[in-house]
Amino acid sequence: MPVSRSAPARQRSLREHNLALVLGAVARTGPQSRARLAAATGLTKATVSSLVDTLVTGGLLQELGPSAGGVEDRPTPGRPGLPLGLSPDGPVGIGLEINVDYIACCTVDLAQNLRRRETVIADLRDQPFGVVLDRAASALSRALSDAHGHGPVAGVSVAVPGLVDTDHGVLHLAPNLGWRDLHVVEELRRRCGEHDLPIKLENEANLAALGELWCGGLRTDEGEPLRTFGYISGEIGVGAGLVMDGRLFRGQRGFGGELGHLPVSPDGPVCSCGATGCLERIAGQDAILSRAGLDCVTGPVTNSEERRLSVLLERAREGDPRAIGAIEEAGQALGSGMAALVNVVDVDTVVLGGMYALLAPWLFEPARRELERRVVGMRWAPVRLLVSGVGQDAAVRGAAGLMIQKVVADPASYVGARSDRSVG
Amino acid sequence: MPVSRSAPARQRSLREHNLALVLGAVARTGPQSRARLAAATGLTKATVSSLVDTLVTGGLLQELGPSAGGVEDRPTPGRPGLPLGLSPDGPVGIGLEINVDYIACCTVDLAQNLRRRETVIADLRDQPFGVVLDRAASALSRALSDAHGHGPVAGVSVAVPGLVDTDHGVLHLAPNLGWRDLHVVEELRRRCGEHDLPIKLENEANLAALGELWCGGLRTDEGEPLRTFGYISGEIGVGAGLVMDGRLFRGQRGFGGELGHLPVSPDGPVCSCGATGCLERIAGQDAILSRAGLDCVTGPVTNSEERRLSVLLERAREGDPRAIGAIEEAGQALGSGMAALVNVVDVDTVVLGGMYALLAPWLFEPARRELERRVVGMRWAPVRLLVSGVGQDAAVRGAAGLMIQKVVADPASYVGARSDRSVG
Repeated sequence: MPVSRSAPARQRSLREHNLALVLGAVARTGPQSRARLAAATGLTKATVSSLVDTLVTGGLLQELGPSAGGVEDRPTPGRPGLPLGLSPDGPVGIGLEINVDYIACCTVDLAQNLRRRETVIADLRDQPFGVVLDRAASALSRALSDAHGHGPVAGVSVAVPGLVDTDHGVLHLAPNLGWRDLHVVEELRRRCGEHDLPIKLENEANLAALGELWCGGLRTDEGEPLRTFGYISGEIGVGAGLVMDGRLFRGQRGFGGELGHLPVSPDGPVCSCGATGCLERIAGQDAILSRAGLDCVTGPVTNSEERRLSVLLERAREGDPRAIGAIEEAGQALGSGMAALVNVVDVDTVVLGGMYALLAPWLFEPARRELERRVVGMRWAPVRLLVSGVGQDAAVRGAAGLMIQKVVADPASYVGARSDRSVG
Repeated sequence: MPVSRSAPARQRSLREHNLALVLGAVARTGPQSRARLAAATGLTKATVSSLVDTLVTGGLLQELGPSAGGVEDRPTPGRPGLPLGLSPDGPVGIGLEINVDYIACCTVDLAQNLRRRETVIADLRDQPFGVVLDRAASALSRALSDAHGHGPVAGVSVAVPGLVDTDHGVLHLAPNLGWRDLHVVEELRRRCGEHDLPIKLENEANLAALGELWCGGLRTDEGEPLRTFGYISGEIGVGAGLVMDGRLFRGQRGFGGELGHLPVSPDGPVCSCGATGCLERIAGQDAILSRAGLDCVTGPVTNSEERRLSVLLERAREGDPRAIGAIEEAGQALGSGMAALVNVVDVDTVVLGGMYALLAPWLFEPARRELERRVVGMRWAPVRLLVSGVGQDAAVRGAAGLMIQKVVADPASYVGARSDRSVG
């Protein structure tokens, strides 16, 4: 039972609701005056002014000068009509991604603008958990130290390629890293000496889907921002994140979106999960590289995933049939997996992310054909296949953005403004 | 963006919200006094009394006599402490199911108790749409005529085995009936002469999932009513309905749950949907009967599905290896399909419904084994497999219950009690 059904609506929650309404309007549509906010939200001007005062005091909104370019009213005595924008000195969100072959870290501001980004490329599969965490914690410490110089940090979220228990910050299983039951959040806290900062662990495909939502710039056929889609994350593993009406659909326990383990070839090879014929064994990065004859490549960064992937792309561009065939076979299997996703949850758009965005020139068509062949409602409810607008940064951008989105969705918790004043 | 974010919370919606809160409390936990309702909802006694008056006047609640067995307070002057229960003369909901081999119709009251049930067994595959609709409309007319004698009809919902456009009452595709793009609601209205009654078309697996939710009596491991689960509907076709926290998850356009068309054997037989190797071709009723050698059986109802299924059950009970083998093979394929469902959406319980409930003695174990083998998070988030508590009636019970649930969720629309009185 959702909270809204089991609890009566009260004045206190009204004010919290309306604070989020006002801040959300500015976050979505940019700087605007109190009068325009009142018109946009349906609240009275007096109510909006009171809410705005709270948000300005709390460091989330800021009155912009006439040169700021926002929509402005004629000035009235005592209450200037200057537009209100998101505070550039407001809280920042930090995202940290620990993946199989890189660690990434970024910082975004209240407007989801990127403030800082750092990537460390390394094959982490052969390294012990403690060593990887040391490197991740170092990257996080640098981001925190840079951010603390400028303003408050709303929190950190950490993307990992596996099954997570977000409530306890535990990574249950990351098959491609060979990790099980690790207290990632606790270990990061200890290493960074940050004991009070909110740190949230989440699956990388889920965060990549949110990164796509907030930063991808993709549109519906009607030109509206895309708010419902399945995002396919192709890395060493294959995962999916589902966004329904602008919200992440996590399933009952947050373990959904395990697209890589759909059975697409029941008698196929044994997977890292223990089952056979999983999609990942055909459409995952290792499987593609192996079919393309790139099990082992030497180069500037010997044998690394990054290097092998760039050789694959190079060969495909040159028209190498083995490289192209390997990608096309992955595309077909992926199309079948995406059709399963669409047949089960029904979304009208699927976004190819991660490595698949790079492979799209060869992978897109076979994937689209198989998707269209297998989606039962295709004739009445067509499914569009798009390529990510964010690319490889999606998960870490989503991770950083998540902490900002929490502030925007619930500014009352952030500013501590829980007065009992009655609001419209 | 959900309504609650885009509109300010107002007093008017507060009263509507609180009417639903009070009626919902009685619907869930049975007859109770105003004082207990106040305690249960967190509203003041004065507010509850005002809301109760509206619900009694609107014919939804009724003051019960002391013999009614509800929880009662000591009587106080002017406001007796008698318990309030759902009105037995309140609105009824009617469910109509048009399936491949039967038409069913039932009527339920406000407490979801069955008032009337009718089933017509017939193989409808070879009959024209108009003839089937005539028979369905006759059954519905009988139910309406019976109901009109007793009280108001909240509405009718119609379960069909296919892809539906609920907004327009159109059945896009029912592969196993050979139907496409039919205006089922309009045709039923015309035949029954009911032009104002709400009639809603919905997929049968979705409604069966709701029937299981409301009437199945299944429990969680903690003994709480089961409110999140995937329901598998096994009939001629194979479908799924997903209930998350007591609500049907319909996907973006209501086309989700097409489990029957998951590819479980990519090189397998061609399906009615046009693709190959769909689950339905291995685990659907026809596939099982065919593998068991029951393509053609003569008996009292020559060659009907009903008859063939009972022969299959008979043979399985006698230990016939061909019958048992056919069911077990279906179980394994079904387990793989259910694992795909769980890997994508993450639910902790899957319920075997329809024909699968009958086949459970032989189908359950192979299905459970394959499910457990293929669910990636099984070790951390176990998945339970249960057998339906409702059985074959689930879809038609869900259809009837849906119209009742709409009244309980939004009594204000039903009673038209939209006063502007402020409610805490």
